[in-house]
Amino acid sequence: MGRADAPERWPSIPIPTESTDGASPADAQEAAAILAETRAVVDPELRTAVGSLPAPLRRIARYHFGWEQADGTPAADNPGKAVRPALVLTAAATLGGPEARTAAVPAAAAVELIHNFTLLHDDVMDRDTTRRHRPTVWTVFGVPDAILAGDALQAVAQRLLAEDPHPAATEAAARLASCVVELCAGQQADTALEGCPPAEVTLDEVLAMAEAKTGALLGCACAIGALYAGASPREVAALDAFGRESGLAFQLIDDVIGLWGDPGRTGKAAGADLAARKKTLPVVAALASGTPAAEELAELYEAPYDKGDLERTVLAVERAGGRDWAQVQAADRMARAVQELSRAVPSPESAGGLLALAEYVTRRTS
Amino acid sequence: MGRADAPERWPSIPIPTESTDGASPADAQEAAAILAETRAVVDPELRTAVGSLPAPLRRIARYHFGWEQADGTPAADNPGKAVRPALVLTAAATLGGPEARTAAVPAAAAVELIHNFTLLHDDVMDRDTTRRHRPTVWTVFGVPDAILAGDALQAVAQRLLAEDPHPAATEAAARLASCVVELCAGQQADTALEGCPPAEVTLDEVLAMAEAKTGALLGCACAIGALYAGASPREVAALDAFGRESGLAFQLIDDVIGLWGDPGRTGKAAGADLAARKKTLPVVAALASGTPAAEELAELYEAPYDKGDLERTVLAVERAGGRDWAQVQAADRMARAVQELSRAVPSPESAGGLLALAEYVTRRTS
Repeated sequence: MGRADAPERWPSIPIPTESTDGASPADAQEAAAILAETRAVVDPELRTAVGSLPAPLRRIARYHFGWEQADGTPAADNPGKAVRPALVLTAAATLGGPEARTAAVPAAAAVELIHNFTLLHDDVMDRDTTRRHRPTVWTVFGVPDAILAGDALQAVAQRLLAEDPHPAATEAAARLASCVVELCAGQQADTALEGCPPAEVTLDEVLAMAEAKTGALLGCACAIGALYAGASPREVAALDAFGRESGLAFQLIDDVIGLWGDPGRTGKAAGADLAARKKTLPVVAALASGTPAAEELAELYEAPYDKGDLERTVLAVERAGGRDWAQVQAADRMARAVQELSRAVPSPESAGGLLALAEYVTRRTS
Repeated sequence: MGRADAPERWPSIPIPTESTDGASPADAQEAAAILAETRAVVDPELRTAVGSLPAPLRRIARYHFGWEQADGTPAADNPGKAVRPALVLTAAATLGGPEARTAAVPAAAAVELIHNFTLLHDDVMDRDTTRRHRPTVWTVFGVPDAILAGDALQAVAQRLLAEDPHPAATEAAARLASCVVELCAGQQADTALEGCPPAEVTLDEVLAMAEAKTGALLGCACAIGALYAGASPREVAALDAFGRESGLAFQLIDDVIGLWGDPGRTGKAAGADLAARKKTLPVVAALASGTPAAEELAELYEAPYDKGDLERTVLAVERAGGRDWAQVQAADRMARAVQELSRAVPSPESAGGLLALAEYVTRRTS
């Protein structure tokens, strides 16, 4: 596969580096407005769905969504950013106008419920203790309650679609279920790769894992929006690919920022990924480079983490080409995303909302 | 609520005790035949659904279903009994004839997938190490793989229904999703009750928990079968209630057999429930009886388990009326089940299959 170029008349989306956030102020404003409008219409649907749960599960879910404290008292509003529901609604509006956008609100809520079900379970598996600046559900309510709340959210997401009379709802339900299988496979690969010696991990494996874990649900969100707009299978596939490629670009950039970004801005300790010996995309690319720096990196990665080695490790990844590779890849994925989008959307003007969201996704952890 | 009587001309289903297995040979044979026929048509559907999973999740699921060893080699066939799919198919056939039965096969597989998803997760939460005479998935593949395989099975179950063109499929999907929420709430209540002092647990709470954990999916299976037969909402509700009441009868009898049954026949160590200080139905009924034996039992249950106290504890439950209560309740639930069934099925003759399965359920752990 050669390097992708943005189609004529279509903008190329700038890829942020550690020294610039890469967003044009107009795009950033547009994305922020779309996200705010999305939350305004999807939040009531989400609250109704969560409100339908029996009392103890409801309390756990409300805590997870940031609406309540663990004791059930209201929490300072700190909601998720709603990137995935925004992709559903914006894809629907782009291909089907405002009526399609309104019709897709329950489906947007279903996608957000699925996202949150996977967060609840991933936090249990990864033993992550913080999520959206608060203790994760399993640390507050225990592992069984976190598993059960996640299970219930998956069920409620599917029930929303099963009860949605829109003609696209059934296909959306099947697509969302397939996406869950892919998300599970991605998380499975991630936990399996953790135990692998770095030399045995291939770049293809890590790219496939990132696509399944991060790209699949972004693609599914866009595809479901297209379904609610009555789009053709070809258009639905193009929207899915647009979301997937944007998701991969995001993951590549996120990995770069994790290594070379400003910890004050990323909210992550410097070298946290290296300390955990994570097989991030730049690291695996560096290890596979066949350079002398790759050998040095492999040696460092096989030894237990030593804080004194941090700078040397980061430098080895860079000298082995891991940073450049990831940035070129990210720009390439973003160009592919735009190319895919141009197959379903007639003009760059009408694609403005989706392009602004794709740019937003690559600038933020979500 | 008064004691339920079986409607005229309808048989009352005998309730097994420790000294009799309560089954008439004809009914037992009929149930065995229904289960075998169910496995013959549902098994291929299940294998296709599981076969659609990506490789690592597929292997975990195949191990769980008993089709493969952990290393992927074929296992000696030791399948689940398929009680729930049999209820789906038999309900469909009873209300809609052989065509409805055939149409309901994917839905029957979906119900079995949901059952197995909950088994995978319950084993993680309960730290159970054995299932169907084999090590549980989490002990073989680890907790993350068990969680992910369960998540994927829930998704595949919903996808089966979303891809089923039958007009009842969408309502079945919504009903199955609601049932998952109820199963989660039941399991949540179960883990929460474990940590409660026995004196604070009410009989209503334990009955509600047993209905959610055991009755809900049996009821849902019957209701889904009725939906595929094109039954009216009233008939669907009656079939749901039939399954629920049968499930509660099963749980009551299972608890009785756990305390007074022959360990050689139950496969459970004598007093295992008492040793774990489980709030089983006969124990909570005994504690709530206001008798002197209830006080003695409360004292015993508050102290750590001592094998020497086993006989005295069992006797206290019996003297406080826990055994009699459970047996009367079980017979009453079974009578209610028959009564509900009579509202949807015109004659006891045509209800033979469902009655045989209900009797089977109360005789076996499933």
